[in-house]
Amino acid sequence: MTDLFSKFDPLIEQRRALLDTGVTDPFSLVMEKVLSPTTAICNGRETILLGTYNYMGMTFDEDVIKAGQDALRDFGAGTTGSRVLNGTYQGHKEVEEALKEFYAMDHAMVFSTGYQANLGIISTIAGKGDYVILDIDSHASIYDGCKMGDAEIVAFRHNDIEALEKRLKRLPADAGKLVVLEGVYSMLGDIAPLDKMVKLAKQYGAMVLVDEAHSMGFIGEHGRGVAEAQGVLDDVDFVIGTFSKSVGTVGGFCVSNHPKFEIMRLVCRPYVFTASLPPSVVATAATSIRKLMHGSNKRAHLWENSKTLHKGLTDAGFELGTKEAHSAIIAVIMPDLERGAMMWEALLEEGLYVNLARPPATPAGMTLLRCSLCAEHSSDQVGEILARFTRAGKRVGIIA
Amino acid sequence: MTDLFSKFDPLIEQRRALLDTGVTDPFSLVMEKVLSPTTAICNGRETILLGTYNYMGMTFDEDVIKAGQDALRDFGAGTTGSRVLNGTYQGHKEVEEALKEFYAMDHAMVFSTGYQANLGIISTIAGKGDYVILDIDSHASIYDGCKMGDAEIVAFRHNDIEALEKRLKRLPADAGKLVVLEGVYSMLGDIAPLDKMVKLAKQYGAMVLVDEAHSMGFIGEHGRGVAEAQGVLDDVDFVIGTFSKSVGTVGGFCVSNHPKFEIMRLVCRPYVFTASLPPSVVATAATSIRKLMHGSNKRAHLWENSKTLHKGLTDAGFELGTKEAHSAIIAVIMPDLERGAMMWEALLEEGLYVNLARPPATPAGMTLLRCSLCAEHSSDQVGEILARFTRAGKRVGIIA
Repeated sequence: MTDLFSKFDPLIEQRRALLDTGVTDPFSLVMEKVLSPTTAICNGRETILLGTYNYMGMTFDEDVIKAGQDALRDFGAGTTGSRVLNGTYQGHKEVEEALKEFYAMDHAMVFSTGYQANLGIISTIAGKGDYVILDIDSHASIYDGCKMGDAEIVAFRHNDIEALEKRLKRLPADAGKLVVLEGVYSMLGDIAPLDKMVKLAKQYGAMVLVDEAHSMGFIGEHGRGVAEAQGVLDDVDFVIGTFSKSVGTVGGFCVSNHPKFEIMRLVCRPYVFTASLPPSVVATAATSIRKLMHGSNKRAHLWENSKTLHKGLTDAGFELGTKEAHSAIIAVIMPDLERGAMMWEALLEEGLYVNLARPPATPAGMTLLRCSLCAEHSSDQVGEILARFTRAGKRVGIIA
Repeated sequence: MTDLFSKFDPLIEQRRALLDTGVTDPFSLVMEKVLSPTTAICNGRETILLGTYNYMGMTFDEDVIKAGQDALRDFGAGTTGSRVLNGTYQGHKEVEEALKEFYAMDHAMVFSTGYQANLGIISTIAGKGDYVILDIDSHASIYDGCKMGDAEIVAFRHNDIEALEKRLKRLPADAGKLVVLEGVYSMLGDIAPLDKMVKLAKQYGAMVLVDEAHSMGFIGEHGRGVAEAQGVLDDVDFVIGTFSKSVGTVGGFCVSNHPKFEIMRLVCRPYVFTASLPPSVVATAATSIRKLMHGSNKRAHLWENSKTLHKGLTDAGFELGTKEAHSAIIAVIMPDLERGAMMWEALLEEGLYVNLARPPATPAGMTLLRCSLCAEHSSDQVGEILARFTRAGKRVGIIA
């Protein structure tokens, strides 16, 4: 028998060698207890969480929790069915209503994960003979949606307006085209020049899909994301989002004003051929989304946190992924993977959890310590975070 | 601008024509209230549910509900992170322990949906130069996993042992091969001849993956599925399963004894690049799985229900998809789509919900009314179901 796993041998070997050095495995950490949106017990130690996407800290909101508990009691633990069969409960309709209201759009379609939202929408709407034009630093779920579909894929250099135009110019004028962008790119926390890119796409007859996973709830006047903040939301054909970041649970969605949008529910395979979200999940999501509509105070505090951390880390001598704070993600650039892993572990020992990101997930072969702020981080916590970063950075020799 | 949705116009037109006839849309039913695993309010009417995959009726189990509510309170509404970053909580470890115990296997890996389990495992382990040999009636998630991977795809006629052997014989002896089978095929409720097929696969040097989504919990001595019932579980390399059927919530998994299995957690994109399941979901799943280990009484009652319904429908003159009850799914064959839709609606008016399945989802262009039984259906309910089927069947002219 040919072992299908033999292709993973080099990786297994590489991993064994790394773990043999005695480092803590950054990819198998367990949150033993979770105390709040910003604190957990890891390896028996109370730890500040600075590497979750819990931007608005809704996971422990009292109304959210109660909505989930009530739905469990009233509707049971799961739907055991697809949305197109027995899996549409009242709660699924309600969360779609909440999304339509949140984005002020005509249609909202909820998927069981954010990954499946990108996978399904992209592979379904861009078919044989169509083109998908995407930023080369797009999320894996966008690439996987491209791979599952039959469209031609054309990538352009990250956030490069001219590169986008050059690609658009070369495509057949009458072909179907879908430009796929993200509001915030999660590796560096930088934002797309959506105003210019959306305008360009329209000029060349392309439709536009924007993934606003990392902006929902706090970027833009109503928290609708970067497209709202840059005044081009009305020209975006499809917004993709997730419940597993600011909303604080799991699931994905697409909102749109396209008059034919509802047909997606019958043709989109990752929507049709999967069980719908449990009643408790849609209830927590709907409650959270409605609260996010009135979250301007929390939003302001999150921005303050992000700016304070960005300035503090810069002042301490760290090299950051962006010149200023554009989002709730701040990426600290490490000189190499080895020292990145050491710094990650040193921070964990200080009681601070961040995400270690390494190639190939990162742009330009960088090793990053990615920090994501939460609206529930207190100013004291941000001060404490800076102190821990500084101590660990000196110990590992990242800063002087 | 070329509208990417114009490709759906024929389908939109066809659907409009159907709905203009005044029929109830079978694909947009809403469960307004859910009263129990077997009853709900649809269109304002109390309805017996005979078209869910809630085989063991765990969705309203008191211990399951309480576990979910407690986890919401103690761990929050979501993890907001991937399993390989901040998304592994104590509860994710616990549900994987429960799965290992349930299947008596060394490794268990939980995905956020069952769809993503098939998508991820198949596309990751069968790569360029490998072959996937699959039953032509395989579930969409299996086909999508094939599409996302780079292996060569070879389909064989449904449940045809000779056809499988013919395909295996033609493939290069030393190539990597993965035979993909399902224990129960959900359209007709028939089961695979796993004993012979697994033996054949091994004989030709192939690894074997079996999707036991529709058998977990009640087929086989310990509810491990058709492979257990036919005595070949030890020769199956990967078992795929779901939390959205017998377990009663949402999620998917793979269990395996392969010594290198854990590397999947780093290379399987639909596992890495997605948020993990909320604490309440893994808590309900773990509790449910542990109770299913001791569910032999419920299992026996479900078998009784399935046999009673099969015999009753046969005696009433309906044509069924299988000669006897092989699983908890009983498919009633309709003469054509039009009368199938009429019968589906007549049953709904009687207060009975079944699944309408139509081409291309069904084998051989059939229209089916698919019934799935639940261990919580009482004997009285099964009698009532038979009475309603008979009345509706006579009214629509399916039976004399």
